[in-house]
Amino acid sequence: MPFELTKDFIEELRTAIENKDEKTALKILDSLHAADIAEIYDAVNIDEAKFLYLLLDKETAADTLAELDEDDRERFLKVLPGDVIARQFIEKMESDDAADIIGDLDEEKKEQVLSHIEDIDQAGHIIDLMSYDEDTAGGLMAKELIKVNENWTLTNCLREMRKQAEEISEVYYVYMVDDNDILRGTVSLKRMLLSDNRKKVKDIANFDVISVKTETPREEVAGIMEKYDLVALPVVDSIGRLLGRITIDDVVDVIKEEAEKDYQMASGISEDIESTDKVWVLTRARIPWLLIGLLGGILVANVIGIYEVDLGMYPEMAFFIPLIAAMGGNVGVQSSAIIVQGLANNTLGIESTVKKLGREFVVASINGVILSIIIFVYNLFASDTYALTLTVSIALFSVIIFASFFGTLIPLALNKLKIDPALATGPFITTLNDIMGLFIYLMIGRILFAVL
Amino acid sequence: MPFELTKDFIEELRTAIENKDEKTALKILDSLHAADIAEIYDAVNIDEAKFLYLLLDKETAADTLAELDEDDRERFLKVLPGDVIARQFIEKMESDDAADIIGDLDEEKKEQVLSHIEDIDQAGHIIDLMSYDEDTAGGLMAKELIKVNENWTLTNCLREMRKQAEEISEVYYVYMVDDNDILRGTVSLKRMLLSDNRKKVKDIANFDVISVKTETPREEVAGIMEKYDLVALPVVDSIGRLLGRITIDDVVDVIKEEAEKDYQMASGISEDIESTDKVWVLTRARIPWLLIGLLGGILVANVIGIYEVDLGMYPEMAFFIPLIAAMGGNVGVQSSAIIVQGLANNTLGIESTVKKLGREFVVASINGVILSIIIFVYNLFASDTYALTLTVSIALFSVIIFASFFGTLIPLALNKLKIDPALATGPFITTLNDIMGLFIYLMIGRILFAVL
Repeated sequence: MPFELTKDFIEELRTAIENKDEKTALKILDSLHAADIAEIYDAVNIDEAKFLYLLLDKETAADTLAELDEDDRERFLKVLPGDVIARQFIEKMESDDAADIIGDLDEEKKEQVLSHIEDIDQAGHIIDLMSYDEDTAGGLMAKELIKVNENWTLTNCLREMRKQAEEISEVYYVYMVDDNDILRGTVSLKRMLLSDNRKKVKDIANFDVISVKTETPREEVAGIMEKYDLVALPVVDSIGRLLGRITIDDVVDVIKEEAEKDYQMASGISEDIESTDKVWVLTRARIPWLLIGLLGGILVANVIGIYEVDLGMYPEMAFFIPLIAAMGGNVGVQSSAIIVQGLANNTLGIESTVKKLGREFVVASINGVILSIIIFVYNLFASDTYALTLTVSIALFSVIIFASFFGTLIPLALNKLKIDPALATGPFITTLNDIMGLFIYLMIGRILFAVL
Repeated sequence: MPFELTKDFIEELRTAIENKDEKTALKILDSLHAADIAEIYDAVNIDEAKFLYLLLDKETAADTLAELDEDDRERFLKVLPGDVIARQFIEKMESDDAADIIGDLDEEKKEQVLSHIEDIDQAGHIIDLMSYDEDTAGGLMAKELIKVNENWTLTNCLREMRKQAEEISEVYYVYMVDDNDILRGTVSLKRMLLSDNRKKVKDIANFDVISVKTETPREEVAGIMEKYDLVALPVVDSIGRLLGRITIDDVVDVIKEEAEKDYQMASGISEDIESTDKVWVLTRARIPWLLIGLLGGILVANVIGIYEVDLGMYPEMAFFIPLIAAMGGNVGVQSSAIIVQGLANNTLGIESTVKKLGREFVVASINGVILSIIIFVYNLFASDTYALTLTVSIALFSVIIFASFFGTLIPLALNKLKIDPALATGPFITTLNDIMGLFIYLMIGRILFAVL
């Protein structure tokens, strides 16, 4: 039942566009959701997209625009005049989508579009919303909501709701305010449907309402909605007046982006990219971490350089350089990933840093002992230098302990300093552990080869 | 306004528990949401938790149980007899939560609990739900929903809904079925509230309803709800009969878990763990990838071993072993992460593999040229062996090209083979690229040192 974009589908649509066959094209698009049309738009060129857009009714066109990738949308809005954007798209949009879209335009176009919005209330809402930082609750919220006074009867309520509900696509809660517009509670549509109409709103309201302030960071908003399983969350100002509401669909995107940001960081990618992005975007997102890796490699080369004479005498020392470096990196990334994820999900608990390091030390010791014994046994058979066998095992154990320690401590420290702890994963910690690990390895080697 | 768990809070609560001061403890818990109480439970010991549980009313106790971590819940249910679980907790739960919880019990307890559920309908629902694979739509859905016949009038509907709605906490949609129970459409509560009661359900219904089958994989369910911004999704059987519905709060967890699974895989962690888990759980989750890394390191040692004589003659070759290995790993992880994320988000588009590899080749070439030139210039000054300078630059370029190629191709191949492509990131690809990279480096080095 859900739509799947195929090559054949695109071919059929393209043929219709080429023949300027509006009827066929419209029939193809007719049964599709705006999110599907947005996907199609991503796969055709700008002229084809324009042809398709002009076929859509206003509402679908507006929904589709809201569903587009930011890049695609920008490209598309560039070729349209401000009054067309205002009348064709913005008018039918919810205030949060409209504010996001207008906020991305350049100053001149922004003025043009805003001046062509006919509904003064809507223009006011959009301008209000554009003033909030997009990483806060204010930047996520929409102005459209249904608000009723606590002293109204349900009959009054229904009358007022008929007026307010027209401009809102979905209603999950009705918000109850007092005479000063202070948020007092919520009323579920279910209870409203099932209660006697002569009752007052406050008789059937739920007073235990969770809300956020406009300046609440979006990660916190996502955390609250996730924890309390909310589909909508009201936003209030500093004295508690109801300003807007955030819906779960916008927060799902935030939750996903946050989780993916950590993944990209751990993979050494510095921007939010997709495999179909342009070559220079992909290159730009990947080169920073590679430069850091290169710099790390040069530092490591210098560390090894200190031991050039030893390596000339015992070249077999070089065999295990990659093993030591890789294991340090792996352990460090594991340790930091656990902390980064714990910080992101707020599951680190109230335990102290010392206790965390203690547990990490035990885990590292167990892993270290197991792995060191394995490599020791391997080298007993594979290597004829006893000094090397001993060096590799001791160094491996030490590196695992150190890497766990740094891997745990660095993300915690970055978090205290209000720097994104995910920076500590990926190439950064790998490089640090490479340097430290090889230093330990070669030093132990120098001593043991001299002694044994 | 949202609750934050602090040490002081826990201390206060513990004092109340120690003094068996039920009144104070209840007052502390009174204003809290079940999700908050679940957090507290995570921070106290099992006896303290039991004391608190007995204070809660049935509904809150059931909600709290549903919110608990799987481990905590298991620990807690172990100490309770089956009939208490059935009467105290299961009775007040929605069918999906109840099925998840009972499904986790051992066989004997499962029977015990099921036999003590008084509501036969509820027991039947739970047994039905337990038959579905938990990674499918069937495993995510709940049986509670409001279902109306298409030919009913709204007045009929409201009467029926009063009966059905009692057992459901939140109603987002009302589902419309025909006489054969086939899902035909949805009716929004908003339209129902605002329409004339003499109208028939089908006159105000939305027929454009998206549904999934019970066997639809949960990743696909999450993708559909995310794409179409749904808060609830109906589940049907193979001939379209309505069986249940999935709500967004359950899917938010899936979306998060999926995103985190990739992150954990890339970080070399093989299970879903938290930093506060027990030492042996943490060790078990971390050692598999470390063993693979160790095995890789041994293989690399053997590759380098082939060149022992060369290294004895030119020990400075060893300086850049970590750089070459690390860069191969970094580039490989970047490439595979982009593909893994594209596969997870379904954003790879309809482009062919050859075209993907082509773009990746261009990106790799640009990065390769930039990085090779930098290291060439560095070595011109830092190294007095021209053969080494040339070897490092040529090898680095080759390694970047190869690593991109494998990094792109392997996750795509794994995905074709129905293996989780995220396996290709992290230690696996790093190890492969280590081996390949050093082989290239040392081979080029042997040739150039001989020739120059």
